Amino acid sequence: MASAAHRSLVLRALLVAAAIAGALSDPTPLQDICVADLQAATPVDGFACKPLTAVVDDDFFSRAIASAGSTNNPFRVNSTRAIVSTFPGLNTLGVSITRVDLAPGGLNPPHSHPRASELVMVLKGEVMVGFTTAANRLFSKVVRENELFVVPLGLQHFQLNTGTGDAVFIAMFNSQSPGVVTPTFAMFSTKPAMPMEVLTKTFLMSEDEVTAMKSKFVGF
Amino acid sequence: MASAAHRSLVLRALLVAAAIAGALSDPTPLQDICVADLQAATPVDGFACKPLTAVVDDDFFSRAIASAGSTNNPFRVNSTRAIVSTFPGLNTLGVSITRVDLAPGGLNPPHSHPRASELVMVLKGEVMVGFTTAANRLFSKVVRENELFVVPLGLQHFQLNTGTGDAVFIAMFNSQSPGVVTPTFAMFSTKPAMPMEVLTKTFLMSEDEVTAMKSKFVGF
Amino acid sequence: MASAAHRSLVLRALLVAAAIAGALSDPTPLQDICVADLQAATPVDGFACKPLTAVVDDDFFSRAIASAGSTNNPFRVNSTRAIVSTFPGLNTLGVSITRVDLAPGGLNPPHSHPRASELVMVLKGEVMVGFTTAANRLFSKVVRENELFVVPLGLQHFQLNTGTGDAVFIAMFNSQSPGVVTPTFAMFSTKPAMPMEVLTKTFLMSEDEVTAMKSKFVGF
Amino acid sequence: MASAAHRSLVLRALLVAAAIAGALSDPTPLQDICVADLQAATPVDGFACKPLTAVVDDDFFSRAIASAGSTNNPFRVNSTRAIVSTFPGLNTLGVSITRVDLAPGGLNPPHSHPRASELVMVLKGEVMVGFTTAANRLFSKVVRENELFVVPLGLQHFQLNTGTGDAVFIAMFNSQSPGVVTPTFAMFSTKPAMPMEVLTKTFLMSEDEVTAMKSKFVGF
Amino acid sequence: MASAAHRSLVLRALLVAAAIAGALSDPTPLQDICVADLQAATPVDGFACKPLTAVVDDDFFSRAIASAGSTNNPFRVNSTRAIVSTFPGLNTLGVSITRVDLAPGGLNPPHSHPRASELVMVLKGEVMVGFTTAANRLFSKVVRENELFVVPLGLQHFQLNTGTGDAVFIAMFNSQSPGVVTPTFAMFSTKPAMPMEVLTKTFLMSEDEVTAMKSKFVGF
Amino acid sequence: MASAAHRSLVLRALLVAAAIAGALSDPTPLQDICVADLQAATPVDGFACKPLTAVVDDDFFSRAIASAGSTNNPFRVNSTRAIVSTFPGLNTLGVSITRVDLAPGGLNPPHSHPRASELVMVLKGEVMVGFTTAANRLFSKVVRENELFVVPLGLQHFQLNTGTGDAVFIAMFNSQSPGVVTPTFAMFSTKPAMPMEVLTKTFLMSEDEVTAMKSKFVGF
Repeated sequence: MASAAHRSLVLRALLVAAAIAGALSDPTPLQDICVADLQAATPVDGFACKPLTAVVDDDFFSRAIASAGSTNNPFRVNSTRAIVSTFPGLNTLGVSITRVDLAPGGLNPPHSHPRASELVMVLKGEVMVGFTTAANRLFSKVVRENELFVVPLGLQHFQLNTGTGDAVFIAMFNSQSPGVVTPTFAMFSTKPAMPMEVLTKTFLMSEDEVTAMKSKFVGF
Repeated sequence: MASAAHRSLVLRALLVAAAIAGALSDPTPLQDICVADLQAATPVDGFACKPLTAVVDDDFFSRAIASAGSTNNPFRVNSTRAIVSTFPGLNTLGVSITRVDLAPGGLNPPHSHPRASELVMVLKGEVMVGFTTAANRLFSKVVRENELFVVPLGLQHFQLNTGTGDAVFIAMFNSQSPGVVTPTFAMFSTKPAMPMEVLTKTFLMSEDEVTAMKSKFVGF
Repeated sequence: MASAAHRSLVLRALLVAAAIAGALSDPTPLQDICVADLQAATPVDGFACKPLTAVVDDDFFSRAIASAGSTNNPFRVNSTRAIVSTFPGLNTLGVSITRVDLAPGGLNPPHSHPRASELVMVLKGEVMVGFTTAANRLFSKVVRENELFVVPLGLQHFQLNTGTGDAVFIAMFNSQSPGVVTPTFAMFSTKPAMPMEVLTKTFLMSEDEVTAMKSKFVGF
Repeated sequence: MASAAHRSLVLRALLVAAAIAGALSDPTPLQDICVADLQAATPVDGFACKPLTAVVDDDFFSRAIASAGSTNNPFRVNSTRAIVSTFPGLNTLGVSITRVDLAPGGLNPPHSHPRASELVMVLKGEVMVGFTTAANRLFSKVVRENELFVVPLGLQHFQLNTGTGDAVFIAMFNSQSPGVVTPTFAMFSTKPAMPMEVLTKTFLMSEDEVTAMKSKFVGF
Repeated sequence: MASAAHRSLVLRALLVAAAIAGALSDPTPLQDICVADLQAATPVDGFACKPLTAVVDDDFFSRAIASAGSTNNPFRVNSTRAIVSTFPGLNTLGVSITRVDLAPGGLNPPHSHPRASELVMVLKGEVMVGFTTAANRLFSKVVRENELFVVPLGLQHFQLNTGTGDAVFIAMFNSQSPGVVTPTFAMFSTKPAMPMEVLTKTFLMSEDEVTAMKSKFVGF
Repeated sequence: MASAAHRSLVLRALLVAAAIAGALSDPTPLQDICVADLQAATPVDGFACKPLTAVVDDDFFSRAIASAGSTNNPFRVNSTRAIVSTFPGLNTLGVSITRVDLAPGGLNPPHSHPRASELVMVLKGEVMVGFTTAANRLFSKVVRENELFVVPLGLQHFQLNTGTGDAVFIAMFNSQSPGVVTPTFAMFSTKPAMPMEVLTKTFLMSEDEVTAMKSKFVGF
């Protein structure tokens, strides 16, 4: 079993691409093409454009999600993202995609995307997908190969491998960078740490109980 | 102490208005005024308009947040909302407001709004406000009377009364119905219930531990 | 070989779902869920919502693209769409997807989507994807399994099976109904017919040449 | 010279079409066509759609601004509007146009459009166009036949015939119904009347001075 | 009594922050955070972003409206703004707020916001709020502490202290910079001066009458 | 008759301004004015702003479409554009205009605009305007002086001079740069050349037939 420090490396790799964030229902582009210049001196909302003369066919092509990542982590899940920060050709175009690999029993833990709806298509195996509305109504289905499930903008959802083998699904977003909020990480793994008082009151638990719960998330 | 069933009544009242949900960065209106007809036969995205001839001055006025609600619940918090479902004049106008009362030590637990950024202004007392980005960076401040704090669209945030007396703040949204996702409720209080396997794997806990944690949220 | 009348039946089936059309960079939703009521008495921009009490888990699930359609037509292509008119749960959510099957040598002929950018992911085989900008610059690539190519909003593009076997790709859109403009159909197969003078002058051809060219599109 | 009552009839005709109002930077349409059904039972944001089977070629055609209106009024101006309420085919398409006729010396008095930028093109004569920013900077030009001037969204602007003959210009808007705010009418001609105290304090005038000023706007 | 030159200093201070302007129904952000870099070399629509590594907790916090400004001016009003130019953390987030102090009898004169709807909440005293539609319908109400009134995007409105003591209200906007058009200033106080012919014809007054009226606005 | 090389010069001039492209339903501006700085070091979505202190009255004025261009080309058409790249004052304002001159019998060949609806107004002569929906329904009308016809966002349309003399119309767009897709150019005149296999399969023609057809478009 991986150490907490190792888990940190593995699991942070699952999340870090999303840190640059994204945008649901992105604004319409203002020209045909504006490939992101990720190194532009002036950071702007989204990204500045690469000069037109430097744009090549490969800018609109990506192998960012061609390979599975390792699911050797406590959640048995790996998310690989083709968002604007990894596929600069998406800049101003309002679409992106994530590939999620789930080992048997693997869970993509409850999370939400601040700037996109999500259309799930299962490529392999069997995945239970569910989301919760503000009225706490849980909508869920077991989704199999070539079947679809849609998650409304910003609502909390999960994906669980309910099959016997590996599962793979893709999640398509109407944003070049949908962002991600994973409540457990956003509470237990923050820098600086979330005040203990917030955690005990959120879970109606004692400090000891919170400390025990939180300890499993060290390094994420 | 209130029974679980009673807590349910009290706390669901905190949340139910939000169930009708909302929209961040709402689309621009297509006419001067379109007061919501909450009883229209055909439900549409947002709300149908009350006939122009029936619109009166009072439609643009609201006392929806004029009074504090009871903070007699485990979180010592009460949210009172002036969103389109309680203030129909907001329809198509892309703004709404919530008043939050916090008893001493009260917490508005971590949550996010799927369709709005939030601008917090403290009216009374002292409130710690914080939000977490996708990179798990926690930004927070203690905010006092007439001071402001802003929470980006869809990110998870909390508000904690860090003062010695009651606290009151208003949260303004750029949506007629910002919606709300409270992860604990969206996991522990759903109908139907969230599968136990999702919860144990989300928190890396045993079923017994989850059952104990979840039991505190019965009735919410 | 199919007769023209038969081709009409086959090929119109490829296109008709798109006739209801769609929207790129759709506006943000105004509530958590608004499943389309395709039979609502009052047609509105997009679709009216099914009553909340009638919404079920299956509304967010779809098998619309689970099966391949027949590629037994002159273009050796079949498009199967999961857009709001075939998957009502997409209403207000700003995403949709099309599955395209290409027999060996099959072509998805040049077309554009009036209301969406398109993110192509090849599921099987080898597909050349290309789009043209207003400056007549052609950007293209051969795309293989699990690789991506992006087409900006509204630009003309094609997909050609350049492999030796069948090919399958999915096209994801940031609209619940992206619409489609296929120039050949929009010129040769309209009701009523496009004036001959427009066609001869568009192609700088004689009437006889146009008549010959157009005859191949009878019934589409 | 026309009586006040007559002026009322004439001048209100200049403004009434705009009363139904409009929307700047309208949301993107969600289907190819949605011709407004101005008589739909359920009023919605914008307008409901005429059934597709009832749509005819003429729905996209309009003679709404083909004829000049009378400039026989105190301002020597006539605005004729092709907005969604007079040209239903514009519904969901985010464009509209107004034709303005100015007799010699005629003025289209300072006004703003709540939901659109305006692109002015002079068709005949010579027109001074100007707008004011929030910093009270006045930008203006004399514009002649086939020349253009642009007014940013929501800013106050005027058009004055500075030539020796009649002048005609068109104003194009990026909204199906841009709306109009004419401050003098919005202060002096309201129903119910603007409180006198607001007017005296707005103009730093006495009640008698306001009454005299306001009297010229009776009937507008 | 203050001289005209002094009034200029005092009253321009009321308005100048708004000169940088704003945006109603701002586009959705494209990342989690983009704090405005007010000094960026390249000015863009909105503002460029401060480098992520330089962002601190205080960037999302503001005391911009914590203190009342002086109401010692002819209108007995003071507007203090927390918009993106004074609270850079608002950049891309689509919200802002203004605090308005009104001495007894004070008036916030008729004005409109080109890029935002406005939600008014009275914090102290009694304020009459009213707006006018394009049909010249005046909607108004007297609003007291903790009560709300909403003003649709771009429509002209006023706020008058109708109570016996000082009044304070906040105006919340769905734009990071709503902009402001105050017709009297936009006509009487422009640089360069509005042509006299525009003013005489707008008010149907003589030059002498206009000169007298305008003289009260020297220095604003 | 012009040589192919000459035709290239003439006809490319018709199209090149559009190459910089545009955006339908552009996002709302974020300040009063942001005149495009076409030479800014950092290209961004749309254009960076000229410094406020350098903005002059002339920035909002344009003679870009004041003169007719030559219709001495095979299509007998000339398009002259006032879009953001030729009229920088349009930046962020979401409007633009094109003037089209048609010699007798001239045709503006079938094309679409990826980012704008189009409102056509005939200034002189008689023009048949038509567009095709995704269902291949052709809507068309003969439009005469001061009459209007509207083309929905992204749909393919044409304009044909059906009168006996020259014709002139203006096309107004709800984008600062609507872009243009002309299918014949986007197939026959690309750099690099469209693969022959795509063309033969698109038109169901032999290579020889395609080569003959394509030869007429050399140089465009």
